[in-house]
Amino acid sequence: MSQSHPAPVAAAESEQTGQFVLTLSCPDKQGIVHAVSSYLFMTGCNIEDSQQFGDHDTGLFFMRVHFTGGTTVDKLRASFSAVGDSFRMDWQIHRAEEKMRVVLMVSKFGHCLNDLLFRSRIGALPVEIAAVVSNHTDFAELAASYDVPFHHIPVKKGTENSKEEAEARLLRLVEDERVELVVLARYMQVLSDNLCKQLSGRIINIHHSFLPSFKGAKPYHQAHVRGVKLIGATAHYVTADLDEGPIIEQEVERVGHEVTPEQLVAVGRDVECQALARAVKWHSEHRVLLNGQRTVVFT
Amino acid sequence: MSQSHPAPVAAAESEQTGQFVLTLSCPDKQGIVHAVSSYLFMTGCNIEDSQQFGDHDTGLFFMRVHFTGGTTVDKLRASFSAVGDSFRMDWQIHRAEEKMRVVLMVSKFGHCLNDLLFRSRIGALPVEIAAVVSNHTDFAELAASYDVPFHHIPVKKGTENSKEEAEARLLRLVEDERVELVVLARYMQVLSDNLCKQLSGRIINIHHSFLPSFKGAKPYHQAHVRGVKLIGATAHYVTADLDEGPIIEQEVERVGHEVTPEQLVAVGRDVECQALARAVKWHSEHRVLLNGQRTVVFT
Amino acid sequence: MSQSHPAPVAAAESEQTGQFVLTLSCPDKQGIVHAVSSYLFMTGCNIEDSQQFGDHDTGLFFMRVHFTGGTTVDKLRASFSAVGDSFRMDWQIHRAEEKMRVVLMVSKFGHCLNDLLFRSRIGALPVEIAAVVSNHTDFAELAASYDVPFHHIPVKKGTENSKEEAEARLLRLVEDERVELVVLARYMQVLSDNLCKQLSGRIINIHHSFLPSFKGAKPYHQAHVRGVKLIGATAHYVTADLDEGPIIEQEVERVGHEVTPEQLVAVGRDVECQALARAVKWHSEHRVLLNGQRTVVFT
Amino acid sequence: MSQSHPAPVAAAESEQTGQFVLTLSCPDKQGIVHAVSSYLFMTGCNIEDSQQFGDHDTGLFFMRVHFTGGTTVDKLRASFSAVGDSFRMDWQIHRAEEKMRVVLMVSKFGHCLNDLLFRSRIGALPVEIAAVVSNHTDFAELAASYDVPFHHIPVKKGTENSKEEAEARLLRLVEDERVELVVLARYMQVLSDNLCKQLSGRIINIHHSFLPSFKGAKPYHQAHVRGVKLIGATAHYVTADLDEGPIIEQEVERVGHEVTPEQLVAVGRDVECQALARAVKWHSEHRVLLNGQRTVVFT
Repeated sequence: MSQSHPAPVAAAESEQTGQFVLTLSCPDKQGIVHAVSSYLFMTGCNIEDSQQFGDHDTGLFFMRVHFTGGTTVDKLRASFSAVGDSFRMDWQIHRAEEKMRVVLMVSKFGHCLNDLLFRSRIGALPVEIAAVVSNHTDFAELAASYDVPFHHIPVKKGTENSKEEAEARLLRLVEDERVELVVLARYMQVLSDNLCKQLSGRIINIHHSFLPSFKGAKPYHQAHVRGVKLIGATAHYVTADLDEGPIIEQEVERVGHEVTPEQLVAVGRDVECQALARAVKWHSEHRVLLNGQRTVVFT
Repeated sequence: MSQSHPAPVAAAESEQTGQFVLTLSCPDKQGIVHAVSSYLFMTGCNIEDSQQFGDHDTGLFFMRVHFTGGTTVDKLRASFSAVGDSFRMDWQIHRAEEKMRVVLMVSKFGHCLNDLLFRSRIGALPVEIAAVVSNHTDFAELAASYDVPFHHIPVKKGTENSKEEAEARLLRLVEDERVELVVLARYMQVLSDNLCKQLSGRIINIHHSFLPSFKGAKPYHQAHVRGVKLIGATAHYVTADLDEGPIIEQEVERVGHEVTPEQLVAVGRDVECQALARAVKWHSEHRVLLNGQRTVVFT
Repeated sequence: MSQSHPAPVAAAESEQTGQFVLTLSCPDKQGIVHAVSSYLFMTGCNIEDSQQFGDHDTGLFFMRVHFTGGTTVDKLRASFSAVGDSFRMDWQIHRAEEKMRVVLMVSKFGHCLNDLLFRSRIGALPVEIAAVVSNHTDFAELAASYDVPFHHIPVKKGTENSKEEAEARLLRLVEDERVELVVLARYMQVLSDNLCKQLSGRIINIHHSFLPSFKGAKPYHQAHVRGVKLIGATAHYVTADLDEGPIIEQEVERVGHEVTPEQLVAVGRDVECQALARAVKWHSEHRVLLNGQRTVVFT
Repeated sequence: MSQSHPAPVAAAESEQTGQFVLTLSCPDKQGIVHAVSSYLFMTGCNIEDSQQFGDHDTGLFFMRVHFTGGTTVDKLRASFSAVGDSFRMDWQIHRAEEKMRVVLMVSKFGHCLNDLLFRSRIGALPVEIAAVVSNHTDFAELAASYDVPFHHIPVKKGTENSKEEAEARLLRLVEDERVELVVLARYMQVLSDNLCKQLSGRIINIHHSFLPSFKGAKPYHQAHVRGVKLIGATAHYVTADLDEGPIIEQEVERVGHEVTPEQLVAVGRDVECQALARAVKWHSEHRVLLNGQRTVVFT
């Protein structure tokens, strides 16, 4: 976990000791851990932290290894592919120190946006916020106060092609800015199936209920009508099925009978911030692996 | 809150200082608290604890007052009725020290039963367990070890009238034993609409999910498939709408991706015990008032 | 609870229906609730919400009443004093809509400051932030982005009178700006006994441990050494006894063996924000009453 | 995690596929994971689950591997010792299915005892309860209802040698019954340094506070005086330093100002049961490793 390895004085980047994260999933069989640990041992790497999970339901195996070594991510990717192929792995290797490039999207409620901007600023999230995107202009100033570019991409109701054009602009931004993760931080527009597919596994939403309860609109009002004693929030990957994507994190808070829908909204802000911040942190640290409609989260 | 008022040495029961609980609900209007506190002041009673709630949605007002006084519950009921009538109150007065008579119903999973029996034994629940009822015989011995009568009331699938007869036996038991509360402590038979109506407001169930998520059968398996990160349990009044009755209490516990459905069941046992025990305690202390499909819980 | 009463179109302020909060504590005796509710009834006020607590240990009685009425706070204060006197009450009446004037103090860690500024901005805290005060200049820009005056009041170690002068400047600011509450939002200077006394009951600190565990410096490091499984934060009134003041709120978060002291600090930021924000909110809503070294919190 | 491997029809025990748990700690260096996974691969074993932790503070490495293989625990122990020696490991191999033999000790409060007995009965704890030991006779009947031998070992105050004799009887029982774990389930006698040493690492206590707060006697009363907003319980290994042993698990519950010391005791029962049950479960599953005055818990 420690980030405190001594920095070599004057070596080329390729020769420094770097920190790396390997994530993989594959059909479970004997020898996977052995193969990975042998590979790392042979290439002079040292395991810092390793987690694994074998899903007996699906027969899939998942692994995350945080390791150090005096090599480059390109060399590692080149040499690991033989191991990956032999076990039919879906695998990735990233530099642990590299910040993930992120776009934050927001509509009218800015608590998650403010929370993520501040966490990023103080180094609590390993992300580089490339841009804030909104269908409104309310948070242009907040973005500016963090020196983050703000893009106003309006979506007009009833206007032909408005959503299509907005999504095209978003995708161009994602491409131009080499964005690796889009975060819907209370962005209230439903995305097209096409966009969901294009950003599959790279887009996280915060839904303001404890899913699968209270899908769809006005979940706090639904929760109030039902009289639940805990309200929640759910951070999940976005899929074409609204509010049905793989769940990354959930949080709840206790509420009493006296709490009005408006007060539920206020209580909910805190659990939304917490659930989303954890989900973004874990994703950025390559701790979240997809397992069908579920997630494996190596915390 | 203190139960430690000095016991008078040699007075008739009717002249002792007793502890009482008044609960009421009525249309909200000016003067209710004043009327109640005046009544108690005039009759020489002292308020120990008082809670109230005005529901702006429904225009209803709810109140619970714990008070002491040198009178009897019969006299209080007689004299308070004028106040109750003038505000069209739905009200009740109980002796605070009087234990509620309860029947516990169970099928094959005994954790809630064991928990409630033990809590009752050590004085942690103000209940008198009149009987344990089960459609199986597994827990006859457990009931016996607590000196609680055990009634085996089998329900045979496909046998005509079997459920009807079982429910009739239960209702007779409720009547004969002056039972005030029936607790479904993992009793796995669906009750008839008729029974639900007859026991309305006097029957509590523990559902092994965070309602309204995962209604119906095998909720832990549903939760596993959906990949939720917290599992829950819900104690609620039973109504004819399965798993839709007013919620009294909910509890959740965090679970990771590695937890199998069987392990969810194990984790769930603890949250079920906690949610149900609190619901039974609060109901027995007259802390739960019905507010349509919701509850007001004065804790 | 609802703030949505219709505003009268064209009446003098003194004739409008206002919302008020009465808080009181006094020796417990029969008739207090009756006296208060009679007073409110007679003056045409309507109780919205009322809570009370009788402490059997100390013999003290505490009450908070939220009520509406077509009068002014001055008239209420004038007319209630007779009731207050007759029960030897320590009492206060405030307009519920009036925002409390607050100074936020911070040193080098800005998460609580950022959190409170944002909550205030979106109306989640009923406060008016009169100023941000710091012994450093790091957060001048953050304060400016919220249009809040920033005061740099340095405290130089080893310099004679430096702390004394700094505290004198703070007290002048408190007086000039009619500040009702000082919040130490990770302000890392120990205050003099004199200042603690002058601001008694009007100054809240967030301590980054679950008090009384880990008083004093570097509590997260202490927690790490001890190997605790939950870390916490404590919001409390400041007294001359360091970290011994009456506790208003505490929050905890689960941590594993792998969490380093630096990571504890990061986890701790969230619980600090939550505990402090709740304490400030409750204090600003006149929900916290002092009971010796303890607090009564009517939530 | 699954326990559902097919049982071979008619093979000698030594040839069946068994489930095993290896735990180890040693100075951290390159190649440990590789050596362990190579060993398991070479001996035809399959890793089901593996966790590790490198403590940068102490330079120690900790690992737990759950694996299956067609061999015996004796053969594994014999063959692994070479690996263990080469890395100076402190290591153990156990059969995963083997229940740990446990003695439960109790004084006057039986909630943890009742909880552990019931969990053991329904298979929720992988333990074999060899005996219940008490310095009182209150729970003889409860033990009997679970068919567990009850030993009354009184400790008389002021009687010379009484504690010494009681501890000698306990140690004989531990030896005679091959007891692997002693659980102090609210056993209120302070143990001698000698006994603590003899049972070091094999004896768990539940302390009824959130340690290190409120060490020693009457922690709930201490908590009440201090006015804390959360109360807790701590399960820890017993050492000669009272209430200072390595913490295994902690749990807390929120409490309000109105809760009396007696009610704190009641709330505390639940958190005590939960913290102790988890600690006993994890210890029995060989998930807890000692790391100086701290623990590593692989959950």
